[in-house]
Amino acid sequence: MTLALYPGSFDPMTYGHLDIVKRAAALFDKLVVGIYDRPNKKLLFTAEERVELAQKAVADIRNVTVQSYSILTVDFAKQIGAKVMVRGLRAASDFELEFEMAMMNRKLKPELELVCFMANLQYQFLSSSLLKEVSQGGGNIDPWVPEHIVNALKQKFGSER
Amino acid sequence: MTLALYPGSFDPMTYGHLDIVKRAAALFDKLVVGIYDRPNKKLLFTAEERVELAQKAVADIRNVTVQSYSILTVDFAKQIGAKVMVRGLRAASDFELEFEMAMMNRKLKPELELVCFMANLQYQFLSSSLLKEVSQGGGNIDPWVPEHIVNALKQKFGSER
Amino acid sequence: MTLALYPGSFDPMTYGHLDIVKRAAALFDKLVVGIYDRPNKKLLFTAEERVELAQKAVADIRNVTVQSYSILTVDFAKQIGAKVMVRGLRAASDFELEFEMAMMNRKLKPELELVCFMANLQYQFLSSSLLKEVSQGGGNIDPWVPEHIVNALKQKFGSER
Amino acid sequence: MTLALYPGSFDPMTYGHLDIVKRAAALFDKLVVGIYDRPNKKLLFTAEERVELAQKAVADIRNVTVQSYSILTVDFAKQIGAKVMVRGLRAASDFELEFEMAMMNRKLKPELELVCFMANLQYQFLSSSLLKEVSQGGGNIDPWVPEHIVNALKQKFGSER
Amino acid sequence: MTLALYPGSFDPMTYGHLDIVKRAAALFDKLVVGIYDRPNKKLLFTAEERVELAQKAVADIRNVTVQSYSILTVDFAKQIGAKVMVRGLRAASDFELEFEMAMMNRKLKPELELVCFMANLQYQFLSSSLLKEVSQGGGNIDPWVPEHIVNALKQKFGSER
Amino acid sequence: MTLALYPGSFDPMTYGHLDIVKRAAALFDKLVVGIYDRPNKKLLFTAEERVELAQKAVADIRNVTVQSYSILTVDFAKQIGAKVMVRGLRAASDFELEFEMAMMNRKLKPELELVCFMANLQYQFLSSSLLKEVSQGGGNIDPWVPEHIVNALKQKFGSER
Repeated sequence: MTLALYPGSFDPMTYGHLDIVKRAAALFDKLVVGIYDRPNKKLLFTAEERVELAQKAVADIRNVTVQSYSILTVDFAKQIGAKVMVRGLRAASDFELEFEMAMMNRKLKPELELVCFMANLQYQFLSSSLLKEVSQGGGNIDPWVPEHIVNALKQKFGSER
Repeated sequence: MTLALYPGSFDPMTYGHLDIVKRAAALFDKLVVGIYDRPNKKLLFTAEERVELAQKAVADIRNVTVQSYSILTVDFAKQIGAKVMVRGLRAASDFELEFEMAMMNRKLKPELELVCFMANLQYQFLSSSLLKEVSQGGGNIDPWVPEHIVNALKQKFGSER
Repeated sequence: MTLALYPGSFDPMTYGHLDIVKRAAALFDKLVVGIYDRPNKKLLFTAEERVELAQKAVADIRNVTVQSYSILTVDFAKQIGAKVMVRGLRAASDFELEFEMAMMNRKLKPELELVCFMANLQYQFLSSSLLKEVSQGGGNIDPWVPEHIVNALKQKFGSER
Repeated sequence: MTLALYPGSFDPMTYGHLDIVKRAAALFDKLVVGIYDRPNKKLLFTAEERVELAQKAVADIRNVTVQSYSILTVDFAKQIGAKVMVRGLRAASDFELEFEMAMMNRKLKPELELVCFMANLQYQFLSSSLLKEVSQGGGNIDPWVPEHIVNALKQKFGSER
Repeated sequence: MTLALYPGSFDPMTYGHLDIVKRAAALFDKLVVGIYDRPNKKLLFTAEERVELAQKAVADIRNVTVQSYSILTVDFAKQIGAKVMVRGLRAASDFELEFEMAMMNRKLKPELELVCFMANLQYQFLSSSLLKEVSQGGGNIDPWVPEHIVNALKQKFGSER
Repeated sequence: MTLALYPGSFDPMTYGHLDIVKRAAALFDKLVVGIYDRPNKKLLFTAEERVELAQKAVADIRNVTVQSYSILTVDFAKQIGAKVMVRGLRAASDFELEFEMAMMNRKLKPELELVCFMANLQYQFLSSSLLKEVSQGGGNIDPWVPEHIVNALKQKFGSER
């Protein structure tokens, strides 16, 4: 059985993330969405909120679960018995940063494999930070996140506009 | 009549921005320099100061006005009746971020066109943030900004060095 | 009146090019699609064929004409009285090459303005060369080119597959 | 059972390719190395030679076979029943070209998944073309290819230097 | 005699930096490692600590000294009589930012030459910020920094894990 | 004494190359411009012509000589006793290709140092291939090459236009 870990901040999970979740879940036996409870980074949602929003989003995918973690990602992967780590690549993502992390992780845990999925066309330019900026400005974000996350964002930004 | 919007932070306006202003003003009937009064970003000058500095810089260009805004850029474009949005591209600018925003904006307001001007050679590597760092360090910034902005920067950094 | 030139190889014209043609034609008074009859480059279609295919593709856009040329692009722009040159930018295009050409052209003809349009999402990853490879391999290219160009490609590759 | 296809020119197979083969073979049930017998590209080795060199290189990996093909890669994937396609990514590879192909392939065969493995550090800057240039110049290529491929390259370049 | 300046934050110095120090020290008569005591940037170590850690790291290289500075880098270069400035380039570094600074510095002090060394393969993906994140998470950082810096990092992050 | 090698095709030498030659000659004791007589690449000028054009261009720089070579660049460097190799970097150059070569060369001859100079602003977007295209099209190339090379290009393209 191959257990895969899809780690990230997911602040919040978008349809772009969800697309990767579905595709990875179709390829591997089990998938854990790992929500990084990172100490130093300023995020909009708490780790608990991010887990809850993600769980609701993946509820109907049989072999996917959501967990938060605050140790090193490679250590978390080992702890849950993941054989492989999953990342999504967008044309607009920072490849160099991805490479940096990948090389560092391989040095730390050589036995943990990393596979990358390429984002679907319609999500190539979707990022959580841009999404939050649009939401804060009152723009329509329905094409990018599930309804319960639309609502959570509206609540955070204190309005129903 | 084609009204164009050139949006940005302009913290402060440089000769690189001014070059785009002039070239866009020569191509379109009217140009509005839109100064984004962004809530979350730490800037050196207030929106009011940035408007004032920009207005003085463009004073002698007949068909250009300066306005600040705090709503979504595409909403501001619609509000003023802009048909087209203008952006400058530098070799050193973040294309991927520009693409992200462009794709998002097109989704939000498909009828708003975006055109990009390529920065002139001497401004390819000029950025407001580098400029501010040099000014703070007491370096000569005369080649990069008009005199009244040189003075405004000196005043902000509390010295005539 | 503003006359714009959209230069390129158009070997052949794709829906990606056509999208730029339509958007530029909506912004400027007249648009000339300039088909570069370049001496040294190996292309699939002759200049005459490329003109014909492009003409049929733009036939229903009132203010667009197609011409081939074999002199320097900036000289052709001057000859037809173009005030502005148009280029499409894709996330996957070679920005550095575009910048090189833009800087050279500006040196050769400083009065000729260049504006870039960002490709629509569905055409961000469409290139004439990849299209030709897929067509040669018998893949379905209907989403990328008009029907008469689908047929022209099939004829070139000697089959109806 | 998950069958994976690792397509490419492999002109010739390097230790960089071989590393991806081993890692993909560890993750999927069966792996087919697909050697593209591309009509238009000038290569050093014939398709038959490339198959032979690759077969010898992967001989001791139980679940890997080598096949050449000359149809579209997505059609070959379908023909052999591959559920997933494998690509290696190097820091120095052309991401934009990879993205172009990936988006085109997804349009042609949406059900075929693509996963990318990141090249190991020591192979990040290894390319078949650079290797051939060094080999032709008489440089030592032992760190980059198995012995039988070192010999095949020497033979091609007509010397034992 | 050629005096070279190698400026940076060095928060803290890594084996990647140290490799550049050694290579530059072999090429120039004297090398000063300049530690930028930058007012606005949040760093882990104070300027004094960074100087101390760097001095210990370079102690056995005859022609290298360490100094901190808080003026513009080009002014510090002039003050110490440096003829040339040294920078390391990694595949994962931000070239565009390096170019921006280089062009600005050349404008400020045309007589100061800049030369770049390419990072060795094993340090291509090593950055001080990633290193600190791994160290904070309790990961093994022995391959990346000298022992006294391993200890300094552990102390900063309040644990011996 | 430090001998430096500046290798390349120089087809032909431009003011961009010449600028690097002068800056490197000011930093090292002797500089050899190495003109690569590459077997497989199609060039406009023969190796002899390229040597002649380069020699005339560098004639007034005391410590610079020009030589052609057809072995591996690292072997040529060793043969002439070069301690360091020089490359110019342009914003528009292919960093990834430069990195590939640098890593390969370091593996082949670890003792040979490589230093990169950043192109001056006015030459950032100048390439020999673009220059040749402009010259062939009859454009003015006086800002980019010395007079004797302007003439050589005109002669090659069979006209005085």
